[in-house]
Amino acid sequence: MHILIIGAAGMVGRKLAARLTADGSLGGRAIDAMTLVDVVAPDAPAGFTGKVTLETADLSAPGEAARLIAGRPDAIFHLAAIVSGEAELDFDKGYQINLDGTRYLFDAIRIANGQDGYKPRVVFTSSIAVFGAPLPYPIPDEFHTTPLTSYGTQKAICELLLADYSRRGFFDGIGIRLPTICIRPGKPNKAASGFFSNILREPLVGQEAVLPVSDDVRHWHASPRSAVGFLIHGATIDVEKVGPRRNLSMPGLSATVGEQIEALRRVAGDKAVQLIRREPDEMIMRMCAGWAPGFEAKRARELGFTAESSFEEIIRVHIEDELGGTL
Amino acid sequence: MHILIIGAAGMVGRKLAARLTADGSLGGRAIDAMTLVDVVAPDAPAGFTGKVTLETADLSAPGEAARLIAGRPDAIFHLAAIVSGEAELDFDKGYQINLDGTRYLFDAIRIANGQDGYKPRVVFTSSIAVFGAPLPYPIPDEFHTTPLTSYGTQKAICELLLADYSRRGFFDGIGIRLPTICIRPGKPNKAASGFFSNILREPLVGQEAVLPVSDDVRHWHASPRSAVGFLIHGATIDVEKVGPRRNLSMPGLSATVGEQIEALRRVAGDKAVQLIRREPDEMIMRMCAGWAPGFEAKRARELGFTAESSFEEIIRVHIEDELGGTL
Repeated sequence: MHILIIGAAGMVGRKLAARLTADGSLGGRAIDAMTLVDVVAPDAPAGFTGKVTLETADLSAPGEAARLIAGRPDAIFHLAAIVSGEAELDFDKGYQINLDGTRYLFDAIRIANGQDGYKPRVVFTSSIAVFGAPLPYPIPDEFHTTPLTSYGTQKAICELLLADYSRRGFFDGIGIRLPTICIRPGKPNKAASGFFSNILREPLVGQEAVLPVSDDVRHWHASPRSAVGFLIHGATIDVEKVGPRRNLSMPGLSATVGEQIEALRRVAGDKAVQLIRREPDEMIMRMCAGWAPGFEAKRARELGFTAESSFEEIIRVHIEDELGGTL
Repeated sequence: MHILIIGAAGMVGRKLAARLTADGSLGGRAIDAMTLVDVVAPDAPAGFTGKVTLETADLSAPGEAARLIAGRPDAIFHLAAIVSGEAELDFDKGYQINLDGTRYLFDAIRIANGQDGYKPRVVFTSSIAVFGAPLPYPIPDEFHTTPLTSYGTQKAICELLLADYSRRGFFDGIGIRLPTICIRPGKPNKAASGFFSNILREPLVGQEAVLPVSDDVRHWHASPRSAVGFLIHGATIDVEKVGPRRNLSMPGLSATVGEQIEALRRVAGDKAVQLIRREPDEMIMRMCAGWAPGFEAKRARELGFTAESSFEEIIRVHIEDELGGTL
């Protein structure tokens, strides 16, 4: 089978390509071709023996979507997006990439469906940003989407399109609302939510990290490995069992910052915990107050999606996948 | 003040223009100009002494939205839409008119806002079709929007845009999720939901009407007079009190067909009820099973929106507004 990953140069896209390479198959079918697309050149996945096509493309440019599906990939992972902060700063760019780009992709598939019956699986990464405060805890599966960012609005709109295009039979779509990914590998970044990863990742390698909020802040997490698992499961799940409500809040782990720190202590000791420097930041604390504390994710769990059940597990996944298995 | 009504030739648009004419003002400000727009030529409201501009225009045509707001109307009622059945039959037309047309309007206002600070009130008619089965009864304000028609999808997307553009400060938007309008004046039409009105309107003037479903079918109703009242209230309400969740399920009356018929009996007697001919229609019964049985509409009621509290009241509104006050 042929797999297309749009947004393949990002952290999740790279891990997804690596996992597909390691598995060698998807849903029992051998993977003989992968097309990896991003606005910057993606890397070829190490060790993949099938045909690899690497593309630099902007999905929101005219004709690009039709070109990308010309080879009729069997499964499409659409991970490409302008991130929340940028979509808030640049209104036009956010709507152009996150909404119009996705709609171009969906419409290119629809037109191909009308031409030759093409009907791929489409796995779309949505976000818990489709929800906006005030939020209950836990957030039930049937809670309304009232985003408080343009990014969340764009994701919520694409979810609606995905469900309608699937209902119409143009493709088999699954929308995956990712939790916050923790521990995010790499360097500390300036994203307001970066500290959730920073306070674990940096101390694990003996570096200092800054904690800008209080220990009682509760949020919703899953590891990069779980995120890739959600996408793989979304690509192979029986859509008849999912029914018309195609956008699913993924399972995850609801934890306070204090619980994160205690898990770090159990895995890496007091010395690691002492590397966390408390520097309260009023602005980040205000932003945090509007973030999702946790979800029931009942439907997704019943449909077989799984995530970590403790923060120690999330830390151990990071040690295994990023630090060679040992501290 | 200057009022723009887009979709002014439809039933609700005509009644809204007539009500604004009768009131002479909106939110305490005298109405000195009305621009009435539709794809077919709208009529001038009888008795309006201000400036009337009648336009035939298609909002989804390039440049039309900017042209329509060139006079910087203070309040815009956007009622124009392709109806549910047509949006389902003609995919492209539905998305073009219901989604792109609305987005062109919102973007034209956004651009004007950037140019000269223009910031009108925008009242958008949404629909209970944003909800899709299975549905609880009553449906709470925080229930998710998972439409099962392209029309409902387009309305739900426009709701998200309206909330985001309002949050960004481009305009003050209010989305009004209208109940099924009952009693709809005019001739019986082929809409699947037409019978809710037909079984009352026709017998009230001595004509037969067909009932295709069983008496226990429960649905959500408001009179045309209430619908106009919602729009007026939406145009004058303090948006600070509404907050960022700008799309509101309107109050209405949840009633079974049997309750509708008993109200008809009390108002017009057995003779009227005997004009209802039962002709069960399997297809319409299946469709009905997915329609909204009723809403809590707690927020809208708290914000001052009001509707009828009995079906006799709904019938009496029809007699007053359409039949000259007597049977």
